[in-house]
Amino acid sequence: MENKNYIYLDNASSTKTDDRVIDEMLPFIKDFYGNPSSVHQAGADAREGIDKARIRVAGLIDSNPEEIYFTSCGTESNNFALNGIMDANHEKGKHIITSSIEHLSILNPLKELKKKGYEETIIPVDNEGFVSPEDVKKAIRPDTVLISIMHANNEIGTIQKIKEISEIAGNSKIIMHSDGVATAGIIPINVNELGVDCFSFSSQQMYGPKGAAALYIKKGIRIKPFILGGVQERGRRAGTENIPGIVGFGKACEIAKVEMKKNYPVLIRLRSRLIKGIMDNIKEITLNGSMENRLPGNVHISFEYIEGESIVLFLNMQGITVATGSSCASQALKVSHVCTAIGLGQATAQGSILFSIGKYNTEADIDKVIEVLPPIIEKLRKMSPLYKG
Amino acid sequence: MENKNYIYLDNASSTKTDDRVIDEMLPFIKDFYGNPSSVHQAGADAREGIDKARIRVAGLIDSNPEEIYFTSCGTESNNFALNGIMDANHEKGKHIITSSIEHLSILNPLKELKKKGYEETIIPVDNEGFVSPEDVKKAIRPDTVLISIMHANNEIGTIQKIKEISEIAGNSKIIMHSDGVATAGIIPINVNELGVDCFSFSSQQMYGPKGAAALYIKKGIRIKPFILGGVQERGRRAGTENIPGIVGFGKACEIAKVEMKKNYPVLIRLRSRLIKGIMDNIKEITLNGSMENRLPGNVHISFEYIEGESIVLFLNMQGITVATGSSCASQALKVSHVCTAIGLGQATAQGSILFSIGKYNTEADIDKVIEVLPPIIEKLRKMSPLYKG
Repeated sequence: MENKNYIYLDNASSTKTDDRVIDEMLPFIKDFYGNPSSVHQAGADAREGIDKARIRVAGLIDSNPEEIYFTSCGTESNNFALNGIMDANHEKGKHIITSSIEHLSILNPLKELKKKGYEETIIPVDNEGFVSPEDVKKAIRPDTVLISIMHANNEIGTIQKIKEISEIAGNSKIIMHSDGVATAGIIPINVNELGVDCFSFSSQQMYGPKGAAALYIKKGIRIKPFILGGVQERGRRAGTENIPGIVGFGKACEIAKVEMKKNYPVLIRLRSRLIKGIMDNIKEITLNGSMENRLPGNVHISFEYIEGESIVLFLNMQGITVATGSSCASQALKVSHVCTAIGLGQATAQGSILFSIGKYNTEADIDKVIEVLPPIIEKLRKMSPLYKG
Repeated sequence: MENKNYIYLDNASSTKTDDRVIDEMLPFIKDFYGNPSSVHQAGADAREGIDKARIRVAGLIDSNPEEIYFTSCGTESNNFALNGIMDANHEKGKHIITSSIEHLSILNPLKELKKKGYEETIIPVDNEGFVSPEDVKKAIRPDTVLISIMHANNEIGTIQKIKEISEIAGNSKIIMHSDGVATAGIIPINVNELGVDCFSFSSQQMYGPKGAAALYIKKGIRIKPFILGGVQERGRRAGTENIPGIVGFGKACEIAKVEMKKNYPVLIRLRSRLIKGIMDNIKEITLNGSMENRLPGNVHISFEYIEGESIVLFLNMQGITVATGSSCASQALKVSHVCTAIGLGQATAQGSILFSIGKYNTEADIDKVIEVLPPIIEKLRKMSPLYKG
């Protein structure tokens, strides 16, 4: 196994860890191996790493450090928020409002909650993937405990009007959670301005290591711990902390906070170049999602008559790494629930590709895609029984 | 912050990561950053790391690789086993048998299960910390679903007669789980010989990195997933895998499997040297746990008239790192539930210290402890109002 030097356009799924992040992690892998819950110096050294990381992670979203709870992944943060809030507030009610395009780490635990007697309203989205704040408002019941709407969709890139939805939640004293895995470190986030009570985000989507994520829990919000045992994370998340991962996550947040402004217009330029290049050279395609409120690195396109997986594999042979959608579902489902939710037909949905551009991508990467993609699409379409072109 | 070169005797809490483990992890931190659920080459490279690790981790306990499920920590493994088994088998019953000296990652989720209508029998231990298999047998009811008894206690080091208890469980068709965080990688384990259906173990206690652990689930055992979302770990543990952590865990298992035999007698020799050195030089102390069935690196001693935390801090000033017990509880409880369970009085329990010896310790480390400890104990006792010496 050798480093392939891929042209890596699957940054929504996982990003290359920044070298500065790795440098920050190494001492905590090699030398500061104490258990941070221990009172001795080895414990204190490890604890110092977590404390510093907590300040940096909080800094990224403008929360207080003591409102940050470290977890092992974005999925755990979402499970924690959903289960913990519903369990801690069951005397208020059993109703949850969410959307049809949430990540599976919201939709699947929700199915389990339903079996236990909880009730849900799943708000549909329009064909650009927007949740209408008005629809959310209409869905509110006296027993609604939680509204959970993702900040931006990881597949089609649509950024929701979270501020408006949070205001609606706040007016009805309903807890507002947002899954920010796709946005944190990519676009500016201030949890107070967004108005959310809970916010999930993850390290590996922002050039930090895998194995570290966080749940922001606003002071005063009632939530039950999800993983129980020792007193780590002030009793809200038991288990020895993944110190190197958390330290790396902290550094990634610090870097993102500073460099986001610089990266953002570059991503937008590369995105426009890729969209134009594909649109100009390939027919019968659809760009999904919204052009106004879209993640800066997101290009999600449906290619008629062919299967996304074939495109992924053919591009892969050219050293180009893209995805059919969410990697969490890629080995299970044939059609993404997000594509279905925005109204794509089964065949169109199956021909969808997510190009997710990151800070390490260059114009040359984009131009290479524009060069090799049209002949691949043409070849695949010629092999397709559906194609009459 | 600099590397203090501690004399590190808190290996039960967390171990120094082996350099060979770090070397194995680095490419997965730097170069193979793809999401292992992705179908492209970057995904395949990451997946290859997990697959190899799974074979090595299974090798340590003689299971099949497909019976290994990766988690983020030993606490998560224990939560997963307890909640997942009870939830998946609720039609059989609601009764759980466990012991009074389990880790908090069993005892605390159990408290939550009780609130939901589950019932427990907590088997007391004798003054060496043994669970009597006969007591377990007597506690079995027609609705008993699970017996969960830890393989060895992380504080007092007593190794349980798991094989006998598993046999009792098997005869009554009850699922047998054991928390092996304190034993895996330290003493030989064959899950088939032990007869367990589920077995929790963790990387950081065996010279692997933090952030990775596993739950062995025997083929055919019914268990519900604990973290829900994507299809990772064959649908039983959602969330992007901590690849570097898992790869490191795998290497740590491979090393442990080979070197355990060499390390074991060295640990026993150092343990005997430390016990003799302390016994010969300090009066009014008790060695807790069993001498026959004891973890090879475990020395757990109660010093009368003084508080364990003071001893930890005074030794810390001499560069020696020890613990009062489980680090998971050290910042919360004053007295360990394990000390209480073996019949220590409050005052004696408070004067307890765990010296946990690891493979990087030397005779010089032990001799340094034997040299500096007696004057520390003498000084502390002179300051104690309880001491009449």
